Parts: sequence; structure tokens; C-alpha cells
Amino acid sequence: MPRRTIENPDSFATLAGMSTHAARVAVIGASGYGGAELARLLASHPHAELTIATASGERAGAALSDLFPSLRGVCDIVCEEFDAGKISESCDFVFIALPHGKAMSMVPPLLERGLKVCDIGADFRLRDVDVFETWYKMPHAAPDTLRHAVYGLPEWNRARIQQAQLVANPGCYPTSAILALSPLVASGAIELNSIIVDGASGTSGAGRASFGLGLHHPEMNGDFKAYNVASHRHTPEIEQGLQDAAGSVDIGGPHMSTHVAPITFTAHLLPIARGILSTCYASLKQELSATQVHEIMANTYAGEPFVRVLAVGQMPQIKHVAGSNFCDLGVVVDARTNRAIVVAAIDNLVKGAAGQAIQNMNLMCGLDETDGLKSAPLFP
Amino acid sequence: MPRRTIENPDSFATLAGMSTHAARVAVIGASGYGGAELARLLASHPHAELTIATASGERAGAALSDLFPSLRGVCDIVCEEFDAGKISESCDFVFIALPHGKAMSMVPPLLERGLKVCDIGADFRLRDVDVFETWYKMPHAAPDTLRHAVYGLPEWNRARIQQAQLVANPGCYPTSAILALSPLVASGAIELNSIIVDGASGTSGAGRASFGLGLHHPEMNGDFKAYNVASHRHTPEIEQGLQDAAGSVDIGGPHMSTHVAPITFTAHLLPIARGILSTCYASLKQELSATQVHEIMANTYAGEPFVRVLAVGQMPQIKHVAGSNFCDLGVVVDARTNRAIVVAAIDNLVKGAAGQAIQNMNLMCGLDETDGLKSAPLFP
Amino acid sequence: MPRRTIENPDSFATLAGMSTHAARVAVIGASGYGGAELARLLASHPHAELTIATASGERAGAALSDLFPSLRGVCDIVCEEFDAGKISESCDFVFIALPHGKAMSMVPPLLERGLKVCDIGADFRLRDVDVFETWYKMPHAAPDTLRHAVYGLPEWNRARIQQAQLVANPGCYPTSAILALSPLVASGAIELNSIIVDGASGTSGAGRASFGLGLHHPEMNGDFKAYNVASHRHTPEIEQGLQDAAGSVDIGGPHMSTHVAPITFTAHLLPIARGILSTCYASLKQELSATQVHEIMANTYAGEPFVRVLAVGQMPQIKHVAGSNFCDLGVVVDARTNRAIVVAAIDNLVKGAAGQAIQNMNLMCGLDETDGLKSAPLFP
Amino acid sequence: MPRRTIENPDSFATLAGMSTHAARVAVIGASGYGGAELARLLASHPHAELTIATASGERAGAALSDLFPSLRGVCDIVCEEFDAGKISESCDFVFIALPHGKAMSMVPPLLERGLKVCDIGADFRLRDVDVFETWYKMPHAAPDTLRHAVYGLPEWNRARIQQAQLVANPGCYPTSAILALSPLVASGAIELNSIIVDGASGTSGAGRASFGLGLHHPEMNGDFKAYNVASHRHTPEIEQGLQDAAGSVDIGGPHMSTHVAPITFTAHLLPIARGILSTCYASLKQELSATQVHEIMANTYAGEPFVRVLAVGQMPQIKHVAGSNFCDLGVVVDARTNRAIVVAAIDNLVKGAAGQAIQNMNLMCGLDETDGLKSAPLFP
Repeated sequence: MPRRTIENPDSFATLAGMSTHAARVAVIGASGYGGAELARLLASHPHAELTIATASGERAGAALSDLFPSLRGVCDIVCEEFDAGKISESCDFVFIALPHGKAMSMVPPLLERGLKVCDIGADFRLRDVDVFETWYKMPHAAPDTLRHAVYGLPEWNRARIQQAQLVANPGCYPTSAILALSPLVASGAIELNSIIVDGASGTSGAGRASFGLGLHHPEMNGDFKAYNVASHRHTPEIEQGLQDAAGSVDIGGPHMSTHVAPITFTAHLLPIARGILSTCYASLKQELSATQVHEIMANTYAGEPFVRVLAVGQMPQIKHVAGSNFCDLGVVVDARTNRAIVVAAIDNLVKGAAGQAIQNMNLMCGLDETDGLKSAPLFP
Repeated sequence: MPRRTIENPDSFATLAGMSTHAARVAVIGASGYGGAELARLLASHPHAELTIATASGERAGAALSDLFPSLRGVCDIVCEEFDAGKISESCDFVFIALPHGKAMSMVPPLLERGLKVCDIGADFRLRDVDVFETWYKMPHAAPDTLRHAVYGLPEWNRARIQQAQLVANPGCYPTSAILALSPLVASGAIELNSIIVDGASGTSGAGRASFGLGLHHPEMNGDFKAYNVASHRHTPEIEQGLQDAAGSVDIGGPHMSTHVAPITFTAHLLPIARGILSTCYASLKQELSATQVHEIMANTYAGEPFVRVLAVGQMPQIKHVAGSNFCDLGVVVDARTNRAIVVAAIDNLVKGAAGQAIQNMNLMCGLDETDGLKSAPLFP
Repeated sequence: MPRRTIENPDSFATLAGMSTHAARVAVIGASGYGGAELARLLASHPHAELTIATASGERAGAALSDLFPSLRGVCDIVCEEFDAGKISESCDFVFIALPHGKAMSMVPPLLERGLKVCDIGADFRLRDVDVFETWYKMPHAAPDTLRHAVYGLPEWNRARIQQAQLVANPGCYPTSAILALSPLVASGAIELNSIIVDGASGTSGAGRASFGLGLHHPEMNGDFKAYNVASHRHTPEIEQGLQDAAGSVDIGGPHMSTHVAPITFTAHLLPIARGILSTCYASLKQELSATQVHEIMANTYAGEPFVRVLAVGQMPQIKHVAGSNFCDLGVVVDARTNRAIVVAAIDNLVKGAAGQAIQNMNLMCGLDETDGLKSAPLFP
Repeated sequence: MPRRTIENPDSFATLAGMSTHAARVAVIGASGYGGAELARLLASHPHAELTIATASGERAGAALSDLFPSLRGVCDIVCEEFDAGKISESCDFVFIALPHGKAMSMVPPLLERGLKVCDIGADFRLRDVDVFETWYKMPHAAPDTLRHAVYGLPEWNRARIQQAQLVANPGCYPTSAILALSPLVASGAIELNSIIVDGASGTSGAGRASFGLGLHHPEMNGDFKAYNVASHRHTPEIEQGLQDAAGSVDIGGPHMSTHVAPITFTAHLLPIARGILSTCYASLKQELSATQVHEIMANTYAGEPFVRVLAVGQMPQIKHVAGSNFCDLGVVVDARTNRAIVVAAIDNLVKGAAGQAIQNMNLMCGLDETDGLKSAPLFP
């Protein structure tokens, strides 16, 4: 249908004039799945243009569409080595799609040059440096920069994101779990020490460079397994997100000690390429019906363009969100045990990575939040 | 990136004024996969709007997004019973996405009311009524209308499509096979009696209403099988398409007897939802190198927005086109047997059905041929 | 390797003479997946022979290998209508593989004729008639027979099974969950009101007659979803099994009221044909290390032929048990929340249905418990 | 059912006494899929025992069940470095399951020590050294030994295999294609220069050590693609097998020049772990009905324990043979083009590798040909 783009009157695009100028975007780490997904989505973005794509080693010099033949004719940009100076000359906005530990030293010089940055990796997600260093087992190279980073979950942090120069894009599991549980946490409906998140992800979540025996097709096809049980690095990120919902924590603000009730998080690997389904359990403080829990959820997300709270009795399916920026949420109350069960489905590469990153870029640049993200899920 | 829509100056949209009026579209048979895919693609179309969606039986009255929860919030139109009069009042263009045998009696009254029609089914694809009746084992209810139908393969029939009121959208296998082989047929490079098409399709090709034991997930998962061997109804359609390429047959014109060299076509079912890969074999009349065959292919499709002829040494993959309107073509010459092998990959629901139908609509309505079809393949 | 069959000296086979006589077996409901799996396994059983296979409707009269072409040349027995008299004349043992509600009236006449019976369905699993009627929403037709039924989980009930004339074969999810949690329940290590079972099953668990849109290949392929959340009928069966482990309940004995702590059970559907993975959560009463929890598990199942307790740090995978009668168990302790997490993997059609049924038959008939069940998992 | 083992009266097992002695078997290269599949099947073999398993590098010293957790408790043998002397002391029979090029220098010393050998790799399959060196692009280290190798396709070469000391186990695609086409070649029904083999394999065919981006689960899942088109090394092997069927070539005899009509062979990769389906095309010399072609096939394979010729109108499916040693064959005649189409389905790791190797071992050792191979396909 004709796009009824309702733009912020002060927006970048409006100011710049859409027909003559669009946000010029760099993708650092374009040779991974996150980077390629950014390229895919940017190719349909009405007000942004991929200007620089970087890759390292032998991939520098290759066309992105040689690395990802799906992009032939869609995005044939040639990857180049990272060069902060060149990026600052030709770009307005930078996405970083690198494994954790790589972005932390790249970001400060980009910020100093006035660029806006969205880091898809983990380096700026955890506000508490100690927590980061404990879980990621490495020192943080830019703790001062970390203080200025804003956690990029628009449904819970939109105003700060709009003002931010540096946004830390949430992890895939945390996106699903925080969206699922935060309304119940914020409303005080659940016991904070009762939370269990049982998540399952498609294999693209492991990344492209991770190919190995564990993801060798003959072994993963037809399989299902738990991994990183009770030790997954997304655990403290979920805790931080729920703590934000619980309290009046000044998220995005200066470093502070957080007192998060620990949760149990188990990750599983699904024999599919895309998608996350997280089944989240929490004990209700008092008896609530499914309708009451649903009402909390529906009220929280009323008007959100990318969160669909399903009617009582409906459950999310990965195939209903795959390829899109939607997060579908379904709620059940187990009256026999007085637990609420919230199931969330997202596409790990879209709402769980590149799509949410573009949503953040749109907010940071004053564009319409849904620009480039209107594609419906690919079903079946 | 910003859409640089190069529109036909005489186009429907331009004449009508894009901000005030877009093509108003009806989808007859919205409850099947073809219909839902039309709704998905139309939701991103800048100059068309889904105005009426029909379904029969208990599905009339349901929101399309109840039948396809992936469309929640994207396309919540309520399905209604087919009513030609109502459609003619509120629509400009009609897609018919019904099983074969249903459209043939619906189309004449729609045409009489001045509507443009694209039939995604098989009723108007075969110009020879006898061939239709032999393969589909039913009488044709509208042989006069059939004479006016244009076969909707834009790469080979663009000019006629632009003038047509009724377009027969090609079948999924024929789209892949005709695009693969027609350049070699047209150039006289191959022996017409040597053609074998070995195709494999994802299960969505069978349709949504076809659920049954053969497509029961436990039985199809992990399986691969041939079906309708040497008896698939797409066989005469491929033959007709290749005959068109071979001769000066006035395609789309009045009924005539065609003298098509019979081909052998074998269909297989893949344990995936979407995609077709057709491996096409033909004996070369004289020795040609892969480079020479590639040159024929590349020249034929130079400038085509949706056909990507891969470099010698590259082969198409279903995942490189899934979700998009692309047809990827790869060529090999088996010098030991002097056969050319052309492999074609498409998404059976996009270039093989709804996407190509929208491409045809764009041509028939004077819109940009790529409107609504710019989404890149979903990879991985 | 040569089979070192260590048989019970009083066994049926030994007494009868293996070369002249084997257990003659009937399978009631051979046209479903459970029945076909019994036929598959019996074809390799050294001391049992499938003598009668029944099916209803048009399937009576068909060769089993027409219904399941995989069995061509392996088991070409012709299905016939159920006839208790004929079965009692030509069989020693009866498996019933029918949907719930069907076996309850069939079993009494079979028992009266002196046959031993293993019911793979749900009719005789729940000792409390009220619980059965509440969850299955139908009256129980044979409550007196129910009192004599023995719950067929050999690892926890071997002695009773050996003496039983009627065994209720456990459900697939309950097999995995009870094997996973019972050691911790029996040892008093966990809080009984803290148990959450998050299970995921391949689609064969739904049965062959269940084909429909929800399991239509295009829709289930690539998908993952929760179903019957907090309302799955296997919930009370798991509770009963854990209660048996918790107390000195005289399992298999006369009807008694059980006081089971309710659990939360969520089922999910995996896009694979075979296998169940259940991730089970429970709060530890006091701090225990993973090694200590592992020791409880390993000690409990020492010597069990079909339970493999993995070393600390290893996790089960469905592909490591598929096609076999194994249940693999892995343990983790989440020290931050003091929860134990036990993950169990089985093949839902083998240890979760037909394989365990044959294990029960072996025990009931005095055969070696592993007869016919020695095949290794099919990997990859 | 009770195993009615009909053994050759002069068999190894009978002479040796089954209860006191079984064939002692070494598997060279146990850490690959072929080796593990041998271990899986040998674990159920009544007259053979895996005595030595070798692996190289860091895998030497590991239990096979550490490399393949599916084998825990089934086959926990510790892998060791290859040592021909030690093998000759403790084994009667050797399987070699190594990449091509490795076995050729290992085999002569094993033969000299009196061991019988079945090589699952490609080194001894092609009788013509020049053909081998052309296709495999390496010199052959043991051309003299090659002269004594027997091609191990039992259905066409049983007598020679029974007498052989060295058997070259056929490749997976060639097994399917030669079984499919040889009856028509031998009967003179088809034009030898018209043969096209269009094969598709599960990903396990690529081997375990081959993990890489092309078989990375996110990229292979949902995909289908052709590979090694017109250049696959199985091409000359299929040609040799068909030439054997065509003429009175003294297969297994001294080196001779063969004059094989070249065929076209295309391989495809399926998004499943196991199975091959080959669709084979050939022009009939004169008109034959499907029934006549079927009769040729059925007569050829009458009495064969592992070849199932399906009735006219039935087609093979990979799921109907997966996990078993069966080859299912279906025939169609395309009367419009006078081509015969034969479709063959096998499990690439069983009949296409380890199962056929055990079948060969059984023949070479005088055991019943079906020993260890009686397991039915795993369906669904």
C-alpha cells in the first residue's frame, strides 16, 4: 500500500530534504550475518543509504554480493578496511556488527568525530563494567564511553535513544525476554526471584564466522540441544533490562551498582536458520487471570509498531515473525501453580539485531521509526 | 536506499496522482498461499492497495490476519465472498489465486466490467484448448476469453503484457524452466528434442488447502521424492513457452495449433517451504564453451531487473533468491557429452506466483515494473 | 557384535524353546506411528514375532507395508479388524497403540482371556480415576481394571512390571521428565513446588492421523511454537510419577488418593520428525554442586541399560538418541539461583513409546530386557 | 522376529564356531561418518566384532563414543594410530574409511599379511589407472594392487566378491545410479549415449571433516543447490559400472581399456542429513511400456535382499530407506519422449557406504549376506 510516512517534523530527512540527501550509513563488519542483514534492510530504506561497508582480511576488497550472493544486484558495494577518518568524511551514522571486544576501542574515535553510532555487539550493553568483565572475561577498554551508551530497546527507552549519540543494540535473547517480562515486572505482578527464561534460537544466531562441527549441517539438522546452560552471557543483560523495568533506575545514565535479582536462563539451538522463541516463567505475587495478565501486556504495548500482543488463547510462532521486525507475545496463566508464562517470538537477525538497530537509527536520526522495517514476515 | 522510481510517464499512478490514488486491487482466493503472498507484497507496494480480499465458506468473514497471523497489523482486511459487481465498483485490478478450473468462469464477467485481471492459476496459460483439456481433464468454460489471454512472462512477453487486459501468470516450474532454456532455444543452440527438466520445489507449491498425509510434517521432514513423473501439468506449459522462444509464434494471439517438441519433465518435492531449483539439460547442436553459452544467457537478460545470470563457475541456490522476485541462472557445459546444463532458482511463491503477478500488474497498469518487488532475498 | 543375551533362566523364551517358539504378539492399531514403530522393532526382535496387526476402516485388509512403505519386505503382514477371540487363540501378548479412550474397553476382555497387555495410550496411566476424567474429559470405562494396571517405567518400577498382566506404557514427555527429575525428588534434594518442565517434541508425537494445517509441512518447516501451555494432559502423569518417586506410594497398587505438588509443564513443537528434549528446572533445598547432583543421577541409574547420565559439562542432544531406546540425561546447577537443571533427550517413538513398550514386554515375558532394543542411535 | 540365519555351510563363522569366535574387524578412519556408521552397524552384527578402530592426530586416544556421543555405551572402543602389524595380529578383516588417496598405500601391506580388506574410499574403484589419475588428479600409488580389486556391488558382482581379498566399495551416487540403470543397460533397452543421472544427496555425504561455510547450518538449512555439475568424480565410476552391465567386461580382472559411453551426471545437495535420490533418464531404443520396463527391473533383482523394485505407479522416497541397507527403485516411461525414468533411493551412509561394506564383508567371509543389516528403515 502507499506508505503513509509520518515523520518527525524536525527529522534529519526532512531537514536535509529527502530527495537530495539521505542518512549516509557505514556498516562495520559487513561480512557477518548482522552486517549483511543491515545491508539487506538498508537496501529498502527510503531515507538511508549504505555508503561504506567494512570487512577485514581477505574480505576487504570483495563486493558484499560476492560474500552474500543473495545481495547480487541489490547491494554490490565493495568492502574496505575500517578507516575512522574516511567514515567520518562520508557518513553520518555507523553500525558496528562485530564480535564482542572489537567495538569498544573503535567507538570513542567515531564519537569524537561527531558520528552517531549503534553497536550491535555486546560491548556497551552492560552498564556495570564489573558485570561486563565478569561475564565476558576481558577488561573493558572504554569505561568512560560506556557511561554514555544508551540501551537500545525502543519500547522501553525511546526518549533516551532519540537523544543518544551511542546506542547499544540489545542482544537477541534479551530483546525477546525483556519485552516479554518487563510489563509484569513494571506492574509489580511477579516475584523477581522466580524468573526462568527458556529460550531457543535458530542457528544464524551463532554467526557466520562460527562454522564448525557443532553447526555442521549433518549434525545440526534434525537436532535440538541446550547450550551455555546457566552461563550464557545474555543472562546479566536480561537481568539489567528487567531491573530497569522494576525500578526507577536511570537507564542510560552514569554508572551505578545495580541489584538485580538473578534469573535462570537456558539457551537452546533449533534446527532452523532464523528466529527465537523464548518461554518465560514467573510466579505471580497474587492470583491473576490470563485476561488480567494480557491486559497488562496489551496496555504496555498499545501503539507500539513492532510488538504484537496476541489475544488470550493464541501463541506466537517463529514463522509468524520471520523476516520482520515484529515481536509477538502470548500469555498464559498456570492457575494450578500461579505462574505466568509469556512466550515471545522474534527474528533474531531483525528485531534481535539488524532490524532493531535500524529502528534505533531511525530514532537517533529523527526518521520515522518504521522506515525500512515495514516488510511483512515471510510466511510460509 | 532512497527509491529512485523511474515511472512510465503515462502510467496509471502518475496520471492518477500517487498521493491521492493508488491502484485498487482485489485478490480472489486470499486464503491460499498465493493470495496471502499477494497481500504480503501489496502491503509494501507504493502504488497499489489491497481493497477487497475474497475467500469462500467459513473463511469469508474472517480477517486475513486471522487466517495468516503473520499478517497481523500488516493486512487485517476482512475476507468476503466473491462479488463481481462489488469488485468492479471498488477496484481497478483483480488477481485470481484459485485452484485451476475456478477462474475460467469468473474472468469473463470481470473483463466485461472493464477490470484488468491477472490469473495466477492455470486456466488461461495454455493457448490450445485441446492441450488444456487433455492435461487438466476438464472442459474449458471460456475458450473465447482464452484467445485474449497473454502469457505473463515479462522477460519474453513484456510488450503484450503492457497492452493486455487479461494475463495468465505462469506456473512456478515453467517460470524457472522457460527462463532457463529460452535463450538457448531462441538462439538455435540446442536440439529441441533433447530437453529434460528436472525440477524440485518446496512444499508451499502444493498449496495450503492440500494438507494431507503426503505433506504431513513428520513424513515430509527429511524426505525427498519425485512426483507426477512424466505427467505433471506444467509439462505442456513449458513446451509452449519454449515453442514461443523457438519460433515466430504470435504469442498471446488467436488460437493456433502449436507443434511443440515434447520434453521430459520431472518434479520433486523438497523438505523446505519455499523455492524451486530446476536443472535443465539439452544437447548442443554444435560444440559451445560454457563462456559462449553464458554469453547467450547474459545478452538475453541484460537489463532485466529480476534475472541474474551468474558468472561461469557459479551456481544458483534457493536460499539466494528466497523471499525475492529474482530468478538466478547458472550455466555449465558438459563437454564430454556436449550437453548444456542450465540451473534456475526462484522463490516459487514470488517469481513463481505472486511476485511475478505483481510484476505483471505493474506492467499492465503502467507502474514501474519493480514496484513492490524490491525486497532483497532473506538470507540466511 | 555377537549378542550376549543374558536371559532370565525362568524366561518365557527359554522355557518355550527359542528356536521353536517365540512370543506371539498382536499390535492393535498398527496403522499409526506407534504401531508401525512396534512392527519395525519387532522385526529385529530375537524372541518375539508379530502375529496379528489390526487396523480399522479401509486400512483393514491392507498390508502394513502398503501403509508404511518403509516396511516393504520387512513386515508385510496384512492388517485385520480387531477380534479379541482370534487374538487370544494366536497370540501371547498384545500391544495397544490407539488414541486415548479406545483401549479402556478393549483391555478387560483381553485380560480375561489370559493375555498380557501393554497399552501405549493414556487410558491406564493415571491411577486416580478422577484425575483421568478431569484431564481427558471423558468417563473411564474400566476403573476396576485400572487398579491392576502397572505404570511401565522400568527404571522405577521394574519388579512390578515383571509381575504385571497389564502395563500402562508412559507418555513420551512423562518418560523424559520423570527420568530426569525422579532421582532429585527421591533424594529429597529439590523443592517439590518449584518444578518447571519445558519440553519440546518432534512432530511425530502428534500421530499419523492428526495431519492438518498445523502440521502441514510448509507451515511447520522452519517453525517452533509452544502448545497446550499449562494444560497438556501429560502434566498429571508427570506429577504422579514424581509423587511415586517422592513417597512410599504403593505404585501399581489399589486406587488411592495422591497428593501431588502441581508442576508447570510447557510443550513445544520442533520442526523435526523424532525426538524429545525436556529441560527441567527445580530449586535445590540446599546448595549442591553440579558434581553432587550428577552423583545422585549417576548412582540412581547405575547399571540401567537405557539411561545414560552424561558427565558434568556434557549436554544431551536429540540426534544422539534418535532411533534408539536411550534416555540421555545432563545436569547443570545454576549456582546464582540455586536451581538444578536437568535436560533429558529421548526418541519419542522409541523410549517414549514403542521401544519402552517392548522393554516392558520383555520384562513381562521374562525375556532379556534389551531384546530387540540394541540398535544404536542413527547419527548423523 | 527370530532371526533365521541361513549361513553358508563353509562360512567363516561356522568353521570358527560362532559362540567362540566372530570376525575380528578393524576400522581404519573411525572418526568420520563412514567409520562411525560401520561401528554402529557392527554393534548389532551377530558374527563380527569391532576390535581395532583407528584415528589420526589428536583423535587417537579418544574413545569413539567421545567423538560420537550417540555411541556411548554402544561402542566405547578407544581409537588408536594405524599400525598394520598390530591389526594383522588381532584382526581378520579391515575396513578403510578414509578420504581418497590415503588407502592406496595402506592396502598392499595389509593384503600381504593375509588380511581381507574392504576400502570404502575411491582408491580402488576405477580399474583404469588413467581414468583414476585424470579425475582424482593424483598418481596412483598401487596400480598392481588395483588389478586385484573387485568392485563391491553385490547385486552385480557377487561371485567375485566372495572370492576377493580386496573389495572396492562403490561410491554412494554410483550405487544408486548403477542399480537403477544396469538392468536396462544389460537388457539392451536403452541408448547408451542418452543417459543423464540427476542425483541429490543429504549433507552427510560430504563427510565430517568437511565442515565449512558451505555446510554451515544457517546457510544449508532451507537450501538446495547443484554442485560439481558435469565434473563430479563419481561420473567415471557410474560409466564403468554401466559398461560392466553392458558388455562382457571381465570385471575385477586385469587392467583393460574400457570404452564407456559418457554420461551426464549432476549432483545436488539436499537440506537433510541422510539419503540419496537419483533420477535417471535414458532413451528407450524401442517403445516399451512402464510394465515392460518394470518387468526387466523386477526380474533382475528378484531375490535380492536389499533391492526393492516398487510397483508401477509407486515412487521411492528417501524416508522409506533411511537407516537401512535398502535400495528402492521406481520406474516410469515417458511415452511422449520415449524415455525411461528410473528413480533410486538409498541411505548414502548405509547402502551407499558402511552397510554395503558390511554386505561385502559378509560375502567375503562366508557369512550370511544380511548379517548386521536387517534393521528396518527409521520412519518417520
